[in-house]
Amino acid sequence: MKDTQQNILIIGAGLCGSLLALRLAQRGFNVNVYEMRPDLRKVDISAGRSINLAFSDRGNKAMKLVGLEDKVKALCIPMNGRMIHDTHGNTFQSNYSGRDYEYINSISRGDLNALLLDEAEKHDKVNIQFNCKCKSVNFKNTTALFKGYITKKEFIEDADVIIATDGAGSALRKSYYLGKKFLFSFSQAYLTHGYKELSILPKPNGDFKAYKNALHIWPRGSFMLIALPNLDGSFTVTLFLSYEEGQYNFNNLTTKERVLEFFQNEFPDALALMPNLLDDFFTNPTSPLGTIKCSPWHYKGNTLLMGDAAHAIVPFYGQGMNASFEDVVELDQVLDQSLKDWETIFKTYESNRKKDTDAIADLAIDNFHEMKGHVNQAIFQEKRKLEMALEKEFPNEYASKYSLVTFNEHIGYREAMLKGRAQDKAILNLLTDGLITSNDDLKLVLNRVKQETEAILEHDRIAGLT
Amino acid sequence: MKDTQQNILIIGAGLCGSLLALRLAQRGFNVNVYEMRPDLRKVDISAGRSINLAFSDRGNKAMKLVGLEDKVKALCIPMNGRMIHDTHGNTFQSNYSGRDYEYINSISRGDLNALLLDEAEKHDKVNIQFNCKCKSVNFKNTTALFKGYITKKEFIEDADVIIATDGAGSALRKSYYLGKKFLFSFSQAYLTHGYKELSILPKPNGDFKAYKNALHIWPRGSFMLIALPNLDGSFTVTLFLSYEEGQYNFNNLTTKERVLEFFQNEFPDALALMPNLLDDFFTNPTSPLGTIKCSPWHYKGNTLLMGDAAHAIVPFYGQGMNASFEDVVELDQVLDQSLKDWETIFKTYESNRKKDTDAIADLAIDNFHEMKGHVNQAIFQEKRKLEMALEKEFPNEYASKYSLVTFNEHIGYREAMLKGRAQDKAILNLLTDGLITSNDDLKLVLNRVKQETEAILEHDRIAGLT
Repeated sequence: MKDTQQNILIIGAGLCGSLLALRLAQRGFNVNVYEMRPDLRKVDISAGRSINLAFSDRGNKAMKLVGLEDKVKALCIPMNGRMIHDTHGNTFQSNYSGRDYEYINSISRGDLNALLLDEAEKHDKVNIQFNCKCKSVNFKNTTALFKGYITKKEFIEDADVIIATDGAGSALRKSYYLGKKFLFSFSQAYLTHGYKELSILPKPNGDFKAYKNALHIWPRGSFMLIALPNLDGSFTVTLFLSYEEGQYNFNNLTTKERVLEFFQNEFPDALALMPNLLDDFFTNPTSPLGTIKCSPWHYKGNTLLMGDAAHAIVPFYGQGMNASFEDVVELDQVLDQSLKDWETIFKTYESNRKKDTDAIADLAIDNFHEMKGHVNQAIFQEKRKLEMALEKEFPNEYASKYSLVTFNEHIGYREAMLKGRAQDKAILNLLTDGLITSNDDLKLVLNRVKQETEAILEHDRIAGLT
Repeated sequence: MKDTQQNILIIGAGLCGSLLALRLAQRGFNVNVYEMRPDLRKVDISAGRSINLAFSDRGNKAMKLVGLEDKVKALCIPMNGRMIHDTHGNTFQSNYSGRDYEYINSISRGDLNALLLDEAEKHDKVNIQFNCKCKSVNFKNTTALFKGYITKKEFIEDADVIIATDGAGSALRKSYYLGKKFLFSFSQAYLTHGYKELSILPKPNGDFKAYKNALHIWPRGSFMLIALPNLDGSFTVTLFLSYEEGQYNFNNLTTKERVLEFFQNEFPDALALMPNLLDDFFTNPTSPLGTIKCSPWHYKGNTLLMGDAAHAIVPFYGQGMNASFEDVVELDQVLDQSLKDWETIFKTYESNRKKDTDAIADLAIDNFHEMKGHVNQAIFQEKRKLEMALEKEFPNEYASKYSLVTFNEHIGYREAMLKGRAQDKAILNLLTDGLITSNDDLKLVLNRVKQETEAILEHDRIAGLT
């Protein structure tokens, strides 16, 4: 598959689509991109929905690939760990790693997307049209039907290949599902919780009202609040709460009095920083949290799903954007193999990649439970403390699950999941059975943990579980 | 919820719908049933698709509830175990249980459905209309739109409650999905394998050509053939094979020569019993194998999904029909609780039941791998031999996973799955590590297995995995 003069149509110019356009243009393809929304460089379209994101090593691997590492770094605020807030307003920090050079970053979705659009448009071979919504894809003919929001007219585009990076509501995925032309496995799974975006504004002098270099969490067992810093001194705050269950839930937080009572009882220190709470609460939407998986991602060599369109995940591992960026790196590596046609390329890509995006989807749900509850439990805190000590003492010999997922971009999510889960289980079991304690010699602890982890993995293999 | 004069509309008069109609009529409800197909008591509609099924204790629990145990027994052929056929035509039997009174039954779908329809129609309160296809359900208004195949006319029916037992392609479930009126979690997952029904006809004198009281299996690692006996002396044979992968697959078995070559190489003893193979092979359809899960099953107190409409599973545990029948028993138990309204009834039913139907869906996929491959592997055979010995020696103290799922109808599928999987893992680990052998004293083996199973379950609990 050498003919780089081919025309590639990309549906969606979000984070994944704009990066993909840039990379394919760098490889010499002709790229046409159609985006449903207006150009976010000209119009503010954030509307209180995930305006900042966690950017980490897998995402950065993609930025290195396209030569944008330094430009992206300028948009980042490092977060070294979680700052955990209890109901009395006490805080303690739990680092993401025992290695100082491992941290994640808060970044503005809009700023990053604008950078990627600018860089893509620098290429003659890239053409981006905004305000064009894809209504359906004829994947047998490799054509897509669009409607122009401004022209109000429908039009059909064809291409040699169509790649849909149009997010969780993907038009191509919908065409696969409704078309019933092949066996299409598909799942959408919602959590019982939704989310609402709130904010902590900067001080009048522009300073941050809380510690800047952390991801703040107020874990409350069945719900939680988090906050990520922005370059302008504000924090984007997100409340994760059940729609229906518990004393306070989205369905019954309907009056100002009740919302205030909820925050006074549960998040008094956050409330003190949020005089604008009620405005935000009643202006911003409550949105669902869903996981989408599907297969196959491609129809022959004609069409391909990438990013959230192929695998939308819940936000609790901070990996949604990173996974989508890594998709582009993975496809790029397959393109390097000089395979004979697009069908072989797409098949190879899915076969390499799907196990990993399935894994990060499951890990993200694990982390939902960890963040809202486990971080508050003594045994999980003891585990975390031990792991930080192991990472500090043996930086080349130990990596926690979090570290494997977030900072070890050279291994896939699935390998990180299997090893990380086995390690977690090993440490929790060894602690419970009294076979390791936080007073033991660390070398001894390291060896016991490694041994027990290997035993767990081996037993799973024998039982055919992995 | 006492008003049994209410009108209940059931969509689908298959196995689950006809049983449900009978039970609800016994409880005093007015029941109207609409079925898409013609009356199977008058027209043969089997068309080479799952004409017989495995009937076991959970299904029988439902037959006891409606007073039909004896009538159903007359339709059953007991199968005491698997008769395994190797490529040389050697056979060995692997019983389903070490207890003689535990076995499963082969039963004709048509005969059983006809019995349930007859019994339901004996009630004045039951009215069944055939040839009426449900096109959609308005779950907010509790009305359903039907099209009469004979009248060619569309009509709308309303009811106090609509229950859809219209199988894997459920119209109500489709209305939930397409309606987007609430967060509907949904998955359809296909195996890479499909199936095709074949047959072994009786001898000229009406006798069975192979041993009658077994489920015959020809396991070949990545594919398999099975056969279940019918009352007329025939066997229904099913080939499970990949669509695309392997030397022989459904996509490349396109000529008579190739099909014969495949059977000669892989199933020579079966081929000798099937002079009609090629006719069957090229007449009968190749059908996909899918798992469907969804939630919620109900919309408020208006509508409810039951049976395959709520949870279609692959056939490898022989539990699809049994699970659907058990649905009716579970709903019946909730109706006994005198709850205040249908919404509470449906919510309670789903909350009790969904964990179990999710479990049997996963167990059925486990068993696909067990049947096509594991039954041929030495360590799995050693495990099975030990388990049979334990069940025989300690009938009240040990039950294998298969037995927990199939013969222990007083515990739910989820409990059976958790305990059964832990037991399997325990035995395989103990055998591999040489901590038990088939020469050990059985009491010692029993205790080691129990101890190791409990340790596995406890470690999973600590790690938050169950």
